[in-house]
Amino acid sequence: MRLAVIPGDGIGPEVIAEALKVLGEVVPAAEITRYDLGAARWHATGELLPESVLGELRQHDAILLGAVGDPSVPSGILERGLLLRLRFELDHHVNLRPARLYPGVRSPLADPPEIDMVVVREGTEGPYAGNGGLLRKDTPHEIATEVSLNTSFGVERVVRDAFARASNRQRRHLTLVHKTNVLTHAGSLWSRVVEEVSLQHPDVTVAYQHVDAATIHMVTDPGRYDVIVTDNLFGDILTDLAAAVTGGIGLAASGNMDVTRRNPSMFEPVHGSAPDIAGQGIADPTAAVLSVALLLDHLGEHESARRIEASVAFDLATRDHQSPGQTYAIGDRLAALVSSNVRTG
Amino acid sequence: MRLAVIPGDGIGPEVIAEALKVLGEVVPAAEITRYDLGAARWHATGELLPESVLGELRQHDAILLGAVGDPSVPSGILERGLLLRLRFELDHHVNLRPARLYPGVRSPLADPPEIDMVVVREGTEGPYAGNGGLLRKDTPHEIATEVSLNTSFGVERVVRDAFARASNRQRRHLTLVHKTNVLTHAGSLWSRVVEEVSLQHPDVTVAYQHVDAATIHMVTDPGRYDVIVTDNLFGDILTDLAAAVTGGIGLAASGNMDVTRRNPSMFEPVHGSAPDIAGQGIADPTAAVLSVALLLDHLGEHESARRIEASVAFDLATRDHQSPGQTYAIGDRLAALVSSNVRTG
Ligand SMILES: CC(C)[C@H](C(=O)O)[C@@H](O)C(=O)O
Ligand SMILES: CC(C)[C@H](C(=O)O)[C@@H](O)C(=O)O
Repeated sequence: MRLAVIPGDGIGPEVIAEALKVLGEVVPAAEITRYDLGAARWHATGELLPESVLGELRQHDAILLGAVGDPSVPSGILERGLLLRLRFELDHHVNLRPARLYPGVRSPLADPPEIDMVVVREGTEGPYAGNGGLLRKDTPHEIATEVSLNTSFGVERVVRDAFARASNRQRRHLTLVHKTNVLTHAGSLWSRVVEEVSLQHPDVTVAYQHVDAATIHMVTDPGRYDVIVTDNLFGDILTDLAAAVTGGIGLAASGNMDVTRRNPSMFEPVHGSAPDIAGQGIADPTAAVLSVALLLDHLGEHESARRIEASVAFDLATRDHQSPGQTYAIGDRLAALVSSNVRTG
Repeated sequence: MRLAVIPGDGIGPEVIAEALKVLGEVVPAAEITRYDLGAARWHATGELLPESVLGELRQHDAILLGAVGDPSVPSGILERGLLLRLRFELDHHVNLRPARLYPGVRSPLADPPEIDMVVVREGTEGPYAGNGGLLRKDTPHEIATEVSLNTSFGVERVVRDAFARASNRQRRHLTLVHKTNVLTHAGSLWSRVVEEVSLQHPDVTVAYQHVDAATIHMVTDPGRYDVIVTDNLFGDILTDLAAAVTGGIGLAASGNMDVTRRNPSMFEPVHGSAPDIAGQGIADPTAAVLSVALLLDHLGEHESARRIEASVAFDLATRDHQSPGQTYAIGDRLAALVSSNVRTG
């Protein structure tokens, strides 16, 4: 197993260290190459993602990323030039974001139901296409545009993936989230594709919700969701909200996947670089560790993935949530649990 | 006071009847003209918003709208052809959406703080511009686009309005919500305008949040928000979420305002036509009643607006939230409270 690791900025390197500690327990022979992409490299060299590095990354089975972003870098530079560039260059069309409320974890909701959903967020088009511009900048007649690009090709492949995932889950329920009553063109395409693909999945029940209504249900009735499929921007918004109601982005893992396997997929915690707490050793590495489980699942190492998940579930059920411990201590606990092959549930 | 009333679809007419009952207590002389726009008219005549009706609407001081939308009409027809057409034709650039957690109201949050925010949502451009299209429809090469249009003119006027509102509030805090790290063009325009206008409002503290992060704080720390200014689509999403955390869209009022007063502003509950409960007389008319208070405020009838708000606050603090009563009964209660000039607080 050849893994590229991009620790990145802020708390990225801190949580990645623990994620690799845990990985070492299940795949001790993993071959790991680190890449120093991020704010420091940009400051030092002006480089974001050199072609040569991109070429090397392609030679790996998967990529593990910590976090990208730093207040010293103007907004958008690292995001568009590094993180989104990786997602687009490596055709990460399935942005997989599970959200589960683990036993023991406190939700901000008063009366949380069982929550176990997975958001399949499109990852390579929509409003993230980077298509837009400024006209007459800094004049009273300035116009700024952002063009959401949605293709039959792009929508269909992610919708197929979402249906396949729904088929393999217990509830077999899929919710399309969009804003078809306003974004009528993109909404029409998404709706038609979901309708067509659903014909091949009579086992999956299908629902539709406008994105605004979905945010309401995410706080009043999140248990209703099984698989959500949605576009790149709505997926960005909904997954942070889903993470919040399931105990916070300290626990939210994600996979940026090319499910055709032509390119390496990239796994990362949903939280960012969190500059406010960086360097203090207090970041929760759980999301990074759960991202390793997603990575292992993607590479077919399901048994190892389950071991990591069970360890996280055990730790969350038993930890003191007021003071869960330093970053390294949580990593140590999880590594020990994985090595003792704890099982839950 | 010449008011145009569009009861609309579903529960629209039900809640509007109660809103007018309450209005009658404070402005008995209001001259009211009803317009039967909505699903029924479209089915009967194919008309959505005839020019002649639009012309008549313009002759009024304000418009009160119930709700628009019906499952028998394809998605987007009524929304784009009637509701959004009204907002755009009448230049409703300030879409005002307060969200307050009233004493006695149960939030879905476990530990809700005091919540009292107002979202100033841009109402006439952004992704709602209706600019986009389909190419090669129903082929494997189909492309759907949606173009977000943002102008210096459009952004500046709503940002100015938001700062003015923040200036008049106790906390004097304004949060710009956008996604500047991805939507870099529109984000750049919004950020620069907020920065410029803030120079003229040294009394207002300014914060920025990405929309995804804002959804997290909306459930973990909603008390932090005072005034939020944001674009049309982010505002749509955030205001439903804000309504949810403050007890539901049964209570959320809104104003679609042309603050230049060149066109009549339009006031409406944020909830939709709710076809699932229409005709049963069980819809909560409180949001429609609070929309009347916003309408009165806009027309300078502040004393009457305060009376309605105080009555709603009293009713919410004292009502049995398990069975608040039929639509008409809530309306009766609120009308009686208004007429007895109840005061709270
Ligand atoms: C950092 C940013 C570009 C990114 C996104 O918007 O996709 C982040 O919010 C995420 O969800 O991974
Ligand atoms: C019905 C729909 C067009 C509308 C919107 O998106 O603005 C509604 O959701 C709202 O918030 O008033």
